[in-house]
Amino acid sequence: MSRYDTQDIIYALATPWGQSGLAVIRISGEGCARTLAPFFSRPNALVGAPNATLVHGYLADEGGQTLDEVVIAVNTQGHGYTAEEALEISCHGSLAVIQAILALLGRIGMRSAEAGEFTFRAFLHGRLDLTQAEAVEELVGSVSQRSRSLSLQRLQGRLGRHIEELKERLITVLASVEVQLDYAEDEVDEFVFPHDDLASLIGDIANLCDTYQVGRLYKEGAKVVLAGSTNVGKSSLFNLLLKEERSIVSPFRGTTRDYIEADIEIGGIPIRLYDTAGLRESEDVVEQQGIVRTERLIGEADLIIYLVDSTDLGHIPTEDERTIVVYNKSDLVRPAEGNLAISAQSGEGVGALLSEIERHLKQSLPEPSDGDLIIEGERQWRLLESARAALQRAQALSGAAAVLDIIAVELGEALTSLGELTGQVRSDDILERIFSGFCVGK
Amino acid sequence: MSRYDTQDIIYALATPWGQSGLAVIRISGEGCARTLAPFFSRPNALVGAPNATLVHGYLADEGGQTLDEVVIAVNTQGHGYTAEEALEISCHGSLAVIQAILALLGRIGMRSAEAGEFTFRAFLHGRLDLTQAEAVEELVGSVSQRSRSLSLQRLQGRLGRHIEELKERLITVLASVEVQLDYAEDEVDEFVFPHDDLASLIGDIANLCDTYQVGRLYKEGAKVVLAGSTNVGKSSLFNLLLKEERSIVSPFRGTTRDYIEADIEIGGIPIRLYDTAGLRESEDVVEQQGIVRTERLIGEADLIIYLVDSTDLGHIPTEDERTIVVYNKSDLVRPAEGNLAISAQSGEGVGALLSEIERHLKQSLPEPSDGDLIIEGERQWRLLESARAALQRAQALSGAAAVLDIIAVELGEALTSLGELTGQVRSDDILERIFSGFCVGK
Repeated sequence: MSRYDTQDIIYALATPWGQSGLAVIRISGEGCARTLAPFFSRPNALVGAPNATLVHGYLADEGGQTLDEVVIAVNTQGHGYTAEEALEISCHGSLAVIQAILALLGRIGMRSAEAGEFTFRAFLHGRLDLTQAEAVEELVGSVSQRSRSLSLQRLQGRLGRHIEELKERLITVLASVEVQLDYAEDEVDEFVFPHDDLASLIGDIANLCDTYQVGRLYKEGAKVVLAGSTNVGKSSLFNLLLKEERSIVSPFRGTTRDYIEADIEIGGIPIRLYDTAGLRESEDVVEQQGIVRTERLIGEADLIIYLVDSTDLGHIPTEDERTIVVYNKSDLVRPAEGNLAISAQSGEGVGALLSEIERHLKQSLPEPSDGDLIIEGERQWRLLESARAALQRAQALSGAAAVLDIIAVELGEALTSLGELTGQVRSDDILERIFSGFCVGK
Repeated sequence: MSRYDTQDIIYALATPWGQSGLAVIRISGEGCARTLAPFFSRPNALVGAPNATLVHGYLADEGGQTLDEVVIAVNTQGHGYTAEEALEISCHGSLAVIQAILALLGRIGMRSAEAGEFTFRAFLHGRLDLTQAEAVEELVGSVSQRSRSLSLQRLQGRLGRHIEELKERLITVLASVEVQLDYAEDEVDEFVFPHDDLASLIGDIANLCDTYQVGRLYKEGAKVVLAGSTNVGKSSLFNLLLKEERSIVSPFRGTTRDYIEADIEIGGIPIRLYDTAGLRESEDVVEQQGIVRTERLIGEADLIIYLVDSTDLGHIPTEDERTIVVYNKSDLVRPAEGNLAISAQSGEGVGALLSEIERHLKQSLPEPSDGDLIIEGERQWRLLESARAALQRAQALSGAAAVLDIIAVELGEALTSLGELTGQVRSDDILERIFSGFCVGK
């Protein structure tokens, strides 16, 4: 982050690069309105605009040639996303317009923003803690409603507040140890190590760690592959799943000669669904390559739906954690009791298949209730794991009073990890916080 | 346009469908703030917001579940793009967020907008005439700076005003003919047909018509194909042209095994540049198909740059309007005087090649000066052509006084075409305008 110069006025296209009704270019930094004003048809209106207002006018280049008709949203210092003086230019969503305005901003002394730099400034100015800053990125990347909702909770600060609470409890434990170390020679009251407090802290951090697997599933989703011999109805089932499931996140991603893919959502989990070409022996080199790619796809899949033709049973793989065997054409032949049967023709049994897919993907994962906090980020998980490991080492040592200073070091390390998690703790303010909050009074 | 119900509250995603920092959802229609307010964390702030202000808060669904943190730009009735009560929701640019908000708006009684419906409403409320409404679409579609600048002039109303001026002149001509028809029996002053006025009007309309070819070139651009035998340096030249020309509009569009394409801009003209596979005889069926596609590409090209290796001259095609022959490897062998020579290796001669490409594409086109009006739209061109044709018929008839009523019909037809062009003239208000403005006073 040291490459960021926080004095610069930065700018970036905040909407996707593409043709559309409108595009938004974001600018942040002290003096940005004054810098842009000479190139705006209503300079005084722009510079004098109160916070949270819109100014309509025309942007022009140095030669006075009009670039576009725009509306500029103004945030004065201390407000808005970055808590800096900031502008958002709504221009026409034309590639030529976007390009002309970005080029102008570069020429008049603003700097093209680094990835995440607006959020970094929001963090620097205390508008977001690190968990919230990370939640912004996770929210933008969310493709399922569940993932959106989970990251929004973190953006609203719920995770940050929970971490703060864990830290307070840890500080209490650490402080009691530190006091014992400092005042042992004064023979203060008999020291009792707070075993229960430490154990419950470890348990709560461990629970939070465990949600990472769930968070990852909702964030990154799962690859589900439709497999089976040719002509068993894979493509019909593929189309049916796309149609059945209303919350299709994106349309087809394009096709290859090997497989078709599409994004759908099942039980809140973003699913990339693949319809593979039929697996069969082939002399054709090109087709053989396709089969190799399909087999690689199956190797990487989180779940394989192996479709079998009920009227013409061929090879049937073993059902396991990664494979669901589904019998198609249930309208023609009823498969044996207990087997998952569908008719890709009539749609019968597709609801049960969707539930089964969801159950398989979620099996062995803790199912959090709606209000539960879930972590998605690998950094957060790593820091929580390192806090837990340090606390467990402290717990192991806590039998022997002689090692109280080593225990204090372990507790301090756990505290640093939690502090790094929210970005609020710097290495040397830990002790200060403990003792200023403690106030022995003696 | 009759399918549009102008009483509905309409909404649409105004930014491209894709993941990004932020997305904007546009809403327009009477009562939209009041309709959205129950699902916004600060309903009173939203409903009471003055025109051109921003309101920060959270959108939630019917169950109270938060959908996103948003900033809503408010335009009250009579202001903003549509001149209706309108909102622009800036939300996080996540696919799940966009989807959740659009779904909410649909459920609470708003209607997904038809293509162009916001601009249609702006036209209905008199904020734009038809030439301006069309300019919005042309501006959004502009990929070259020249096209952007030309469509922006039209958006600012320059074309509309010019058409109005032409109409006024036509009305004067028509009115003098109508007066003669009505009052002929009263023997008003000797009637002189305004031949000069009509001729100058025809000339000005013809000039405007002729700009259509130019406008089309700047709007739709040109296809330029790099051709030549294998290993003459086509790919080096392709990369050099991409690098040389700073205003690259979009990066590579993807590749096929036949050719690579990229968008660049030369002299303000958007160019799609194709690097073809070497043209050679082949036994391979797949490669033969590639050659067929390449030949089709060359058939459709506006310009072919045929690259020849100066050290190994092979077949050299005739230079013509569509073909520029370029001698590569000028650093090794100097080609004959007058030939266009480059070194794709060192970059020598590329500037001259760019100028030559521009000259070829613009040849036989009128070169408008910077302030000239240019039309891009086919509808505009068609209406101008039909006005011109009607006026020329009137001119041809104007020798014989007996056909004054037929001349009036032709002039009226021309006036209707011009009126349709701006969308301001309805069939029955033509005569009214003429006579109310005329005021014979007798």
